[in-house]
Amino acid sequence: MTMFNCDYLEGAHESILKKMMDSNMEQTVGYGEDPHCKAAAGIIRDMVGDERAYVQFLVGGTQTNMTILSYLLRPHEGVISADTGHIAVHESGAIEAQGHKVITLKNHDGKLRADEIKAYVKAYWADDTFEHMVKPKAVYISYATETGTLYSKDELKAISKVCRKYDMYLFLDGARLGYGLMSPASDMDIKDIYELTDVFYIGGTKQGALFGEAVVFNSRVDHKDFRYYIKQKGGMLAKGRLLGIQFEALLEKDETGRQLYFELATHADMLAMRLKQGISELGFELYCDSPTNQQFFIFPNKLLKKLSKRYTFSVQAPVGEDKTAVRICTSWATEGEAVEKLIADIEKAAKKLYNGKA
Amino acid sequence: MTMFNCDYLEGAHESILKKMMDSNMEQTVGYGEDPHCKAAAGIIRDMVGDERAYVQFLVGGTQTNMTILSYLLRPHEGVISADTGHIAVHESGAIEAQGHKVITLKNHDGKLRADEIKAYVKAYWADDTFEHMVKPKAVYISYATETGTLYSKDELKAISKVCRKYDMYLFLDGARLGYGLMSPASDMDIKDIYELTDVFYIGGTKQGALFGEAVVFNSRVDHKDFRYYIKQKGGMLAKGRLLGIQFEALLEKDETGRQLYFELATHADMLAMRLKQGISELGFELYCDSPTNQQFFIFPNKLLKKLSKRYTFSVQAPVGEDKTAVRICTSWATEGEAVEKLIADIEKAAKKLYNGKA
Amino acid sequence: MTMFNCDYLEGAHESILKKMMDSNMEQTVGYGEDPHCKAAAGIIRDMVGDERAYVQFLVGGTQTNMTILSYLLRPHEGVISADTGHIAVHESGAIEAQGHKVITLKNHDGKLRADEIKAYVKAYWADDTFEHMVKPKAVYISYATETGTLYSKDELKAISKVCRKYDMYLFLDGARLGYGLMSPASDMDIKDIYELTDVFYIGGTKQGALFGEAVVFNSRVDHKDFRYYIKQKGGMLAKGRLLGIQFEALLEKDETGRQLYFELATHADMLAMRLKQGISELGFELYCDSPTNQQFFIFPNKLLKKLSKRYTFSVQAPVGEDKTAVRICTSWATEGEAVEKLIADIEKAAKKLYNGKA
Amino acid sequence: MTMFNCDYLEGAHESILKKMMDSNMEQTVGYGEDPHCKAAAGIIRDMVGDERAYVQFLVGGTQTNMTILSYLLRPHEGVISADTGHIAVHESGAIEAQGHKVITLKNHDGKLRADEIKAYVKAYWADDTFEHMVKPKAVYISYATETGTLYSKDELKAISKVCRKYDMYLFLDGARLGYGLMSPASDMDIKDIYELTDVFYIGGTKQGALFGEAVVFNSRVDHKDFRYYIKQKGGMLAKGRLLGIQFEALLEKDETGRQLYFELATHADMLAMRLKQGISELGFELYCDSPTNQQFFIFPNKLLKKLSKRYTFSVQAPVGEDKTAVRICTSWATEGEAVEKLIADIEKAAKKLYNGKA
Repeated sequence: MTMFNCDYLEGAHESILKKMMDSNMEQTVGYGEDPHCKAAAGIIRDMVGDERAYVQFLVGGTQTNMTILSYLLRPHEGVISADTGHIAVHESGAIEAQGHKVITLKNHDGKLRADEIKAYVKAYWADDTFEHMVKPKAVYISYATETGTLYSKDELKAISKVCRKYDMYLFLDGARLGYGLMSPASDMDIKDIYELTDVFYIGGTKQGALFGEAVVFNSRVDHKDFRYYIKQKGGMLAKGRLLGIQFEALLEKDETGRQLYFELATHADMLAMRLKQGISELGFELYCDSPTNQQFFIFPNKLLKKLSKRYTFSVQAPVGEDKTAVRICTSWATEGEAVEKLIADIEKAAKKLYNGKA
Repeated sequence: MTMFNCDYLEGAHESILKKMMDSNMEQTVGYGEDPHCKAAAGIIRDMVGDERAYVQFLVGGTQTNMTILSYLLRPHEGVISADTGHIAVHESGAIEAQGHKVITLKNHDGKLRADEIKAYVKAYWADDTFEHMVKPKAVYISYATETGTLYSKDELKAISKVCRKYDMYLFLDGARLGYGLMSPASDMDIKDIYELTDVFYIGGTKQGALFGEAVVFNSRVDHKDFRYYIKQKGGMLAKGRLLGIQFEALLEKDETGRQLYFELATHADMLAMRLKQGISELGFELYCDSPTNQQFFIFPNKLLKKLSKRYTFSVQAPVGEDKTAVRICTSWATEGEAVEKLIADIEKAAKKLYNGKA
Repeated sequence: MTMFNCDYLEGAHESILKKMMDSNMEQTVGYGEDPHCKAAAGIIRDMVGDERAYVQFLVGGTQTNMTILSYLLRPHEGVISADTGHIAVHESGAIEAQGHKVITLKNHDGKLRADEIKAYVKAYWADDTFEHMVKPKAVYISYATETGTLYSKDELKAISKVCRKYDMYLFLDGARLGYGLMSPASDMDIKDIYELTDVFYIGGTKQGALFGEAVVFNSRVDHKDFRYYIKQKGGMLAKGRLLGIQFEALLEKDETGRQLYFELATHADMLAMRLKQGISELGFELYCDSPTNQQFFIFPNKLLKKLSKRYTFSVQAPVGEDKTAVRICTSWATEGEAVEKLIADIEKAAKKLYNGKA
Repeated sequence: MTMFNCDYLEGAHESILKKMMDSNMEQTVGYGEDPHCKAAAGIIRDMVGDERAYVQFLVGGTQTNMTILSYLLRPHEGVISADTGHIAVHESGAIEAQGHKVITLKNHDGKLRADEIKAYVKAYWADDTFEHMVKPKAVYISYATETGTLYSKDELKAISKVCRKYDMYLFLDGARLGYGLMSPASDMDIKDIYELTDVFYIGGTKQGALFGEAVVFNSRVDHKDFRYYIKQKGGMLAKGRLLGIQFEALLEKDETGRQLYFELATHADMLAMRLKQGISELGFELYCDSPTNQQFFIFPNKLLKKLSKRYTFSVQAPVGEDKTAVRICTSWATEGEAVEKLIADIEKAAKKLYNGKA
């Protein structure tokens, strides 16, 4: 069985494990105030080009989203999200459990549009009864989005502008930031992300780490009491250095200036592009057109049944009576060979079905 | 200036004030355990035909909605509502502040549809990742709805059936219950409401009382610790008898078996029907077709400007470039004469505008 | 049966009812933005001597406490209270339900001491692990306290000073503010209260109103989004004018400059002093020595049993094997005659018990 | 510098790291539903002797405490804890942030007493105004406690009995369960813990794992929706197998029936006993008498200053003018040699100070 249903199926890249082994018997203070976390934070500040950027490390995505939004919002304030946003759909109500409404706008290929955010917020403030409605105070976007798509720099600039005009925070979920930035379709680098958002994070869990998300506050945003929130929401790891160590391994530049994090992301993105091309050439339709490591196809149910003996995909939605949209993910751990074999097996199964008695 | 923008512009019906005066110097225990609350609860139990029905009195609508939903739901559970539902739009996030997601489905004339609720819930439970999504555990509807419309008995039965099948509470917001039940378009009485829902309330604030909502739990629903919630959410009135006294005045039957509550509602509904007929005959379009005390019309902005010197309406939404939808409410306190004058003034203004230089 | 167990046993002073009757058919906007609320707020601003003071009206005490503290505190912040404080004991966890810890310090006659607050806060900030502990950000006191006692001006000044030094809000629960200020033992007026605290309220429910608490923010405190909180917590009364009307009646000065609110409080306090003197002279011990409308005595259980046929008191605690501490309250509605009768009846019962077979 | 301030200074025992390495490239489903978590849960069910016991794995202690208590309690319910309990003091208000009051009783050597719990709960239910006070619904204890002490089996039985009588859950924080059970002073095994409590956890973070706490619900307790809570509170690790793998390594029996978890705990406890004996013999007083891996001594400040060049301890409290209580921890990672050296260095420093000019 080869699993393609998500991008967190294996452990971690061996460099991370090695670094963890090497540092294992060091004694360090806890709770993320150790030398490894400090070093990793320093690397990130360099990457974003602002030595006053504020960096903290958390364990997982839902935890990070709820901790940041709880920090940014007061009880009467809510966050605008695409209706496909992870916080709107797949976090068991973690944001509402913090007391905040997730205000959903219709997604366009997984993305929010600046003009629609503006229209919503403008109408909100124009309404006499605004005190009776949740105040929009933050905008949540993800990069890459839940459907693998990317904001262009212009799109992000436009959203950023709306946020500043209407005094809202712009928060970018970067659980798949590397896959996003390394996509051939991306026209941004991490400095752009830093400058155009108020808070974002560099996802580790889905990009080669055992776990871990590196949160980055733009220096213009007050971050003073953020660590209280990490503790209160259960995200302050006793052996916090495990986070620092992993991000050191992922982000330290080697002698040629390369960073493992982006190398791994590039690897996954390229395999995903190969998958898209290979499967498309077999005549299967895309469910949505993603330039990153998550690919979405529509397959006949009969084909899926056949493939399910050897492969796992993630079911998205039924399409008509006899087709289903599925997600196929590559990751830092996917091997080129496995991708070629998958394409070949799809081809084989398709031939059998449509040339044979199916 | 005559105000038609809502149905809580005046104080209370004089019978209520009189009863309040008469009982003013009685000494009673507090917090809703006094003889007046007990008597009023008894009347309500008679009305719904179940002596084991559980009745409590709260002060206002938002408070009542959040107290009930906090009581019914555990942290990972949410409530399904029409996207026009009061809890989804106009309570400053009170439900989310209690930790619960309001799951919105598209309204149809202000109403939910049983088949769409069922489709949502069925898909939820069919999804492998259901633990990552808020569990739908209650359905919120209002009667009359926020746009004045009414569920038919068949529609309510169908929703009730879906709720029972999928183990969800059905909660009916009756802020305008009287206006609903007394509408010529209603095919239900309060016993139907009681039997088909798990919890509902009889709204006082908008129907002749100074304030107050009478919550009724069906006897099949556990209500054991509900009073803790009333206290904790700030709804337990020290002089709780004020609620009992008002509902006694509204619901006690007179010698002919009539109840003030329904008399007042009938009065308002009939005036609303007259308004609808009168204004429609002048050629103005309905924004939505309501058989209860809230009426919704589309008027040219120029006309509205003229009328605004003498009348207040509640703005709903712009319609195209030069029209606006507004709400016009009648209430227990509206006089027939005022309605006739409004119709006449609209006619006059319209004539002036469209026969004159406009 | 004559009830002395609390100070909210009757309705409201007749002047309030009259004003409510007189204004009953006025049409006003809702939610506390009507002319009556505006007028009452104006009177209060005059009383505190700051035209930039911010005034809002809420319905009840628990609601007011939780709304204010939710507004003042962020999730990691808590409020310091005496262990006898109403928010610590008698609000069903309303403050914790808003997410905040109530940090209790031992009371001294129902009061906090400035030096003990300071010691706590100083130790907090000196602790390395402060991020792991709730940040003290507000101090809650009541005036009169839950046991009827009063802070002296010097005591309040000292607490105020500690609060400012350690960047904490000082919030004063004035559910019984009038009874406090009118006590012969008080050395403050409402301007002192205003200047020395950040937020306080003028309690109506227990002092002659049907219900209602007037919240006053000192102008140095940001109050910008407070109304969202009132709405979200369920405290925004649709017919908000009912609050304004009552406070107008209570606080408007008559031709001689007198205000009903303080007249009624004086009346109750004087009857309470008479009670204290009368019962003390019979040889019964005080449970605590209160200079306001709540009096606390220790009575033999046998005596209490006898009295319970004619009177209700509020049980505080057992004292040894055969005595009990009870609270006896006077209020705006208590008559002098009833107080004399109570004293006489206690004397009579005591004589019978201790000269007879008891 | 040798650090003795806590028991989570190093990484993890090498067996854990090895198992993590060996399984690194396995593909497994996420969120704790993988074969490793299932295997580890099976081992735990065997250990507690109930195949219907319910086991889940979380990341850290605060997260585990808040997730369990949020699951067990409804909004109006609170948890009784010693005033030294971790949830009462050192979790930044995580329990209150879930909406629940932590009701503190005075500790006795870090422990609650059954009779005092009973007295509290009995008085609660005897009070007329119980609805105005938080309902005690759970009792939180830790084993070993925050001060290293242990409940005897009789003490735990007595507390368990009170809990059942008054319908409260008994929840045991086992962050240091192994150190507790392996103490020479313990008269219980893990089956006793399982039988006498409703929920407890086996702490990994402080006992040889990188992180991880294994939660065990007694089969008599409903656990149906617990996984929603894990997800909502941010505790559901994407690569959940990391938890399963670690607990497999800690709890699998070797050929002689030994379990690493208890071997490591025994090791730390024995070194702690050596520390206690060695330092006591030097004449230093115990701050509290712990039979587990945390030891508490009172040292002169001058001595501490000297030692601080080579050692870190955890400051507990000042004792008088010139002494301080400190915590010294051993752990799975502490070496016997380091303990001997510490004792020798204390002796040396003490001699120098008190035979010299000090």
